[in-house]
Amino acid sequence: MIGRLAIVGVGLIGGSLARALRAAGAVDEVVGYGRGIANLQRAVDLGVIDRIESSAERAAAAADMVVLALPVGSMAVMMGQIAPQLGPQTVVTDVGSVKGSIVEAARLALGERFPRFVPGHPIAGNEKSGVEASFAGLFRDRRVVLTPVAQTDPDALERVSAMWQATGAQTVTMDVAHHDEILAATSHLPHLLAYCLVDTLAQMDGSGVIFDFAAGGFRDFTRIAASDPVMWRDICLGNRAAILSALEAYRRDLGALMAAIDREDGAWLQELFARAKRERDALNGGRG
Amino acid sequence: MIGRLAIVGVGLIGGSLARALRAAGAVDEVVGYGRGIANLQRAVDLGVIDRIESSAERAAAAADMVVLALPVGSMAVMMGQIAPQLGPQTVVTDVGSVKGSIVEAARLALGERFPRFVPGHPIAGNEKSGVEASFAGLFRDRRVVLTPVAQTDPDALERVSAMWQATGAQTVTMDVAHHDEILAATSHLPHLLAYCLVDTLAQMDGSGVIFDFAAGGFRDFTRIAASDPVMWRDICLGNRAAILSALEAYRRDLGALMAAIDREDGAWLQELFARAKRERDALNGGRG
Repeated sequence: MIGRLAIVGVGLIGGSLARALRAAGAVDEVVGYGRGIANLQRAVDLGVIDRIESSAERAAAAADMVVLALPVGSMAVMMGQIAPQLGPQTVVTDVGSVKGSIVEAARLALGERFPRFVPGHPIAGNEKSGVEASFAGLFRDRRVVLTPVAQTDPDALERVSAMWQATGAQTVTMDVAHHDEILAATSHLPHLLAYCLVDTLAQMDGSGVIFDFAAGGFRDFTRIAASDPVMWRDICLGNRAAILSALEAYRRDLGALMAAIDREDGAWLQELFARAKRERDALNGGRG
Repeated sequence: MIGRLAIVGVGLIGGSLARALRAAGAVDEVVGYGRGIANLQRAVDLGVIDRIESSAERAAAAADMVVLALPVGSMAVMMGQIAPQLGPQTVVTDVGSVKGSIVEAARLALGERFPRFVPGHPIAGNEKSGVEASFAGLFRDRRVVLTPVAQTDPDALERVSAMWQATGAQTVTMDVAHHDEILAATSHLPHLLAYCLVDTLAQMDGSGVIFDFAAGGFRDFTRIAASDPVMWRDICLGNRAAILSALEAYRRDLGALMAAIDREDGAWLQELFARAKRERDALNGGRG
């Protein structure tokens, strides 16, 4: 049970976490802070948070748990702001899709409170943004990766783990660098490919007609290109090395595919497609 | 109203067409032919076709309308087989995702019957295959592109157009080459990118863990990589030039994206993502 929970950034993730913890009876009071006052007011109206705090520092002061649910690039500044107000028992966690750069920022910003910071990343979300899009079931049966480091206080880790489990999620711990490599491959790479595809098509002659003829496959494929641009800018900058490495591998493989089409190598193409289909069909027992 | 309809290839598309025309009362009798006898028997059991023909020639003989719903690479051989049996009034059409190579094959194979061939392409489908996956509503409110050439008989075009309209689809006519360029961009390119992504990830160290952490975005993005490998091999070979051109443009743009990440150009990245998001959000009024 969390006494006072401070959500900094009451959007899809922060809002859904608050909703889920309330629904589970796992929190007494939820205070919220964020840049957009209209969004915060909506969060109050929707019953997602109990009240708005006028600053991040005030939100963090006297909170038992502070959740930073912000774009990756805003984390460092926010940590610097709240650091002076954190009590010795306050636990801080984040939900960023990148862990290496956030852990380094926290180490610098939080100083002696750094052991009470637990780096976290719920593997959940969709292309929508804002508290309106939040819902209590977002994390149910999803994984939340926690990436504690050597200095992380086991009690803080336990509290963050318990919080996520109360939302219906499974928690797993993982090494920071390993998390960043896996996410570069499974999440960052597809998002960048989708953004790039939409933009490439938009630049083609007759792009209006092109988009008119986009069918279901295209819609599924590019849905993630409607995600928040600032969030994805920050992820690119925050996980640069792992993302570049994944893009390099992809671009190399795409070159091989193009060469096979160019030389009309039907056997090579069929083998690639069959191999990829087997992998895709096997994904979690073919749940789609 | 079609008297006898012959479906050659009773899979997702052929089966759904038969179902839709039956549901609309737009056909008297449906005969089917295909390579897999178990699939054909299932089509009879499901009421999709009235009976199985023992050969494509027999299916085509005495049919008013022959629909070739086969992988692109099988069209030429099949046209050669049925050509001798076609009556002077029989209309032949296809559902291939590529039109240029099919029109050339038809010109060679059908000889004096070529004017009764109407090249067609329903912009509908999903990653599933086989008659089990077929359903009557597949074409409702979807577009069907017809690409008649100078020699195409207007009466044949009218009959094929009426057939598709009876399924609830909208028909549009388009130049063959234009169709192939548009489809290379909106359909062929995303399918190839998805196949390539799944394969790139499968080759990474620890690919098992990577797929374990694949979330919703990845699932949406790669669903089309479960499509039929033979169908996509044929599309690559049949629409080679337009596909290579689209892949070239994409690979160039991906290189620019990588360069921006490498030089940590946040403004460039945010602008790209925002531009792509606007285009994606605008897609058919944001129906997703």
